[in-house]
Amino acid sequence: PSPRQPVAATSAQPAPASQPERVGQHALVDRAANARLAFCERSVKGRFDIIVPTLKEVSALQHEPDFPARAQALAMKQLGHTLPADILENAWVAGLDLKSLYAYCTFAALKNSAARFAEDLKSQAESVQDAQNFFLDCGFHAVDISPCADGRLKGLMRYILRLPVTSLTRRTAYAGAMFDVESDVSHWVATELSRFREGVPTTADAGTRYLKVAVYHTSSSQPASEGCAAHGSNEHKAMEAALERLYQFRQAIENAFCCGASTDLLLIGVDTDTDAIKVHVPDADGNLSAHRFVDNAKLFRDTQGLDANAARLAVYEAVRQASQASGWGAGNGEPHDGMRRLIINLLINNFSQIEYVKEQYNGRYPDLGHAERYVSVGDGIEEVQMRNVAYYAHLNTVEEGAADLDVGVKIFKGLNVKRGLPIPVAIHYRYDHRVPGSRERAVAKAQRVRAAIQARYAALHASGMLACHLTVQDLPTGSPIEDVEGER
Amino acid sequence: PSPRQPVAATSAQPAPASQPERVGQHALVDRAANARLAFCERSVKGRFDIIVPTLKEVSALQHEPDFPARAQALAMKQLGHTLPADILENAWVAGLDLKSLYAYCTFAALKNSAARFAEDLKSQAESVQDAQNFFLDCGFHAVDISPCADGRLKGLMRYILRLPVTSLTRRTAYAGAMFDVESDVSHWVATELSRFREGVPTTADAGTRYLKVAVYHTSSSQPASEGCAAHGSNEHKAMEAALERLYQFRQAIENAFCCGASTDLLLIGVDTDTDAIKVHVPDADGNLSAHRFVDNAKLFRDTQGLDANAARLAVYEAVRQASQASGWGAGNGEPHDGMRRLIINLLINNFSQIEYVKEQYNGRYPDLGHAERYVSVGDGIEEVQMRNVAYYAHLNTVEEGAADLDVGVKIFKGLNVKRGLPIPVAIHYRYDHRVPGSRERAVAKAQRVRAAIQARYAALHASGMLACHLTVQDLPTGSPIEDVEGER
Ligand SMILES: [Zn+2]
Ligand SMILES: [Zn+2]
Ligand SMILES: [Zn+2]
Ligand SMILES: [Zn+2]
Repeated sequence: PSPRQPVAATSAQPAPASQPERVGQHALVDRAANARLAFCERSVKGRFDIIVPTLKEVSALQHEPDFPARAQALAMKQLGHTLPADILENAWVAGLDLKSLYAYCTFAALKNSAARFAEDLKSQAESVQDAQNFFLDCGFHAVDISPCADGRLKGLMRYILRLPVTSLTRRTAYAGAMFDVESDVSHWVATELSRFREGVPTTADAGTRYLKVAVYHTSSSQPASEGCAAHGSNEHKAMEAALERLYQFRQAIENAFCCGASTDLLLIGVDTDTDAIKVHVPDADGNLSAHRFVDNAKLFRDTQGLDANAARLAVYEAVRQASQASGWGAGNGEPHDGMRRLIINLLINNFSQIEYVKEQYNGRYPDLGHAERYVSVGDGIEEVQMRNVAYYAHLNTVEEGAADLDVGVKIFKGLNVKRGLPIPVAIHYRYDHRVPGSRERAVAKAQRVRAAIQARYAALHASGMLACHLTVQDLPTGSPIEDVEGER
Repeated sequence: PSPRQPVAATSAQPAPASQPERVGQHALVDRAANARLAFCERSVKGRFDIIVPTLKEVSALQHEPDFPARAQALAMKQLGHTLPADILENAWVAGLDLKSLYAYCTFAALKNSAARFAEDLKSQAESVQDAQNFFLDCGFHAVDISPCADGRLKGLMRYILRLPVTSLTRRTAYAGAMFDVESDVSHWVATELSRFREGVPTTADAGTRYLKVAVYHTSSSQPASEGCAAHGSNEHKAMEAALERLYQFRQAIENAFCCGASTDLLLIGVDTDTDAIKVHVPDADGNLSAHRFVDNAKLFRDTQGLDANAARLAVYEAVRQASQASGWGAGNGEPHDGMRRLIINLLINNFSQIEYVKEQYNGRYPDLGHAERYVSVGDGIEEVQMRNVAYYAHLNTVEEGAADLDVGVKIFKGLNVKRGLPIPVAIHYRYDHRVPGSRERAVAKAQRVRAAIQARYAALHASGMLACHLTVQDLPTGSPIEDVEGER
């Protein structure tokens, strides 16, 4: 069997016979995928983490003869790209501008990582198709996921849930998973219209549903300090708030459009120490409960050492049992068949990630808290999906997103400014080439947001500790990332 | 014949036989409507204009015995409402707080005017139905109009075009008529979905169209200084910019949705000195030209003294002749029949407004420039439709709308601050009661915008020269305007 990406559509199939099931190891884990993801994580984070050591070496060379050439050779060797020639050549006058070099290298690492992810996405065409078919089989024509913007959930799709980016999936992150109901209703409307007009991805009478997923998070080892900052590290609050927003979304659609406007809701919790998920199981009416869920960390332990079939059966059974919860978590029966299959696949996919964290980090990330490499502002670069790479503030204006941004700047004062390094702020907006003037407006928006950031953090900006970089990108996933200006 | 509101659907019908057609007067003018509108304008502007004289009288009384009671009696008599008791009672300590009283009275006048307009709208139910039927007869299931935000166009619908507010019409104003293509495409999408799902207002296969109208403006007597500020008072620039935006809108829809996504475009110019319009006549392909239009000021003169039938015939003929323009304005034939009927009705409706300005202002407004009574921020109070009542900045954040707002504040520094009066800023947002949490979010948005305005104009705010008032309103036209807090 060829090593394939693990996708929702296929991960529930029997493990390839050639892989021996080792005792104590988990039969449903996709080891080939884990190896590939580990390589990817090392190479991406490596790109960022080699910057400071390399610049230290470059700095040490700055009074050597032939400095620019030697610096370039070193940079090519360690970073894979050259450095801006003028900075190197001007070093003899006022010393080497290391802050600018640092910002330049960080944005180069970001760009290279994004390109790498985009390449990767192209090679996943087959599994993307599988995943789409799987969603449609489960009765979903759209899967709209809103996690918290926390950098520790940046790997949600690719690592934690192992879902490829497809045209059916949409991901928008907000602090505390407090997604924008109005904007989501707009997306629902556009999705429905495309079904009515074009029968894409399903015809209007197909009886498929729009699935809205909210993802909150907690920290199992330090729940009171390393949980969701937007909810004061209170897991119950984070969960209830996400639940309330989900119901608001459903209610908005039911109120504004007549009957038949059927949406499904799903709530998922992530333990950011271990990446193990909790899936809240909807009942037959589509209602959720904070107290009715499958705890995948426990399920992983319970199914370790079982053969693949027994393990899979145990997952089915766990979902069934959750549906029979009594007391606080009691609901009205089991969810529809497609929803059950989706949940089962998410749980099994997440087994691989639990194993991944065990293998790579001994079961618990060493960076429980923040260790982001840059601040991502705007639409975010969706191709870069990895834990703790970016602190992400989804915003159209600083005025609306100031609270999120302040948190990010505070984090990076600790991470960077106190080491004398500037805060790299990647401002990124998507445009739609089909809409005339859309690119120009995206560029203008990026420039406006930069000006607002520089005004809000004027002291940092004045001291050169705020390095903004502007990019735009066409809508289709994997489109090239376009530098708006040669900023460094 | 009963005196009815002039509506697009009926104004092309024969004038009532009981109205003698006086020589030199225009046979197609609706004199009853003009009288009603004049009364409305006097009473609304009177409400604002009586404030300063009344407060001067109140001020003169402040050292009299029994001052609060006498002031209240005076206010009731002249303003129709009382004044805040605590301000009157505290006057003996530090003098009467006239800035607060002025702001209080201005917002009271605004609220009373809006209520009056809302009442008026309810009494127009019949003409609203007529207008809807007329639009549908012309083949339009939606009429989306974007004028410039200039206060002199605030009476566009009710006065200049004589169109009642209907569920088919939508009006969003932007500086320079530079409307938001993305937001308009969203509205188009929602409109289409409602046709597909519910057959409202027409079924998807009805072959009706979505009409997008842009309205620019100029000043015939001082074109180089009193035209559209957003386009440097250059009429040609204003026109071309609006035209480009219209084409962008059409292109966006044609690109994003397959064939059949038919939209019609219309471009209208207004001379804000006389309220006479120019209507740019689309050709058979729906294309427009800056140089192909009917000049209604000229048409009004040419048709004066004709009997109603002859005048109506002349209007038909003017539209036909415009379609046959050669040279720069050449197009490919005449527009479809429904479009032609719509244009003819707009021209005839506007005759009444040209006559109105002749009667009331001797053919040319005395306030060629700005004489607004308050700054309207946010969604605007759509019920208040009258020239030069408000300077309107449509914005969701000060960050995006700063340029528009700066212009408004500059205007009011001239109008108010130099007389020692604060700038009344009415911050108003609509919510949708069908969307849970929508009202709370609208209130929060209004509060955020107020904070941003107070921060941007900190000196004015500190000196009490910025009086913000927060209101929200449910979506349906005529819904009550809700004070968010007891601000004065
Ligand atoms: Zn969070
Ligand atoms: Zn609870
Ligand atoms: Zn203008
Ligand atoms: Zn031209």
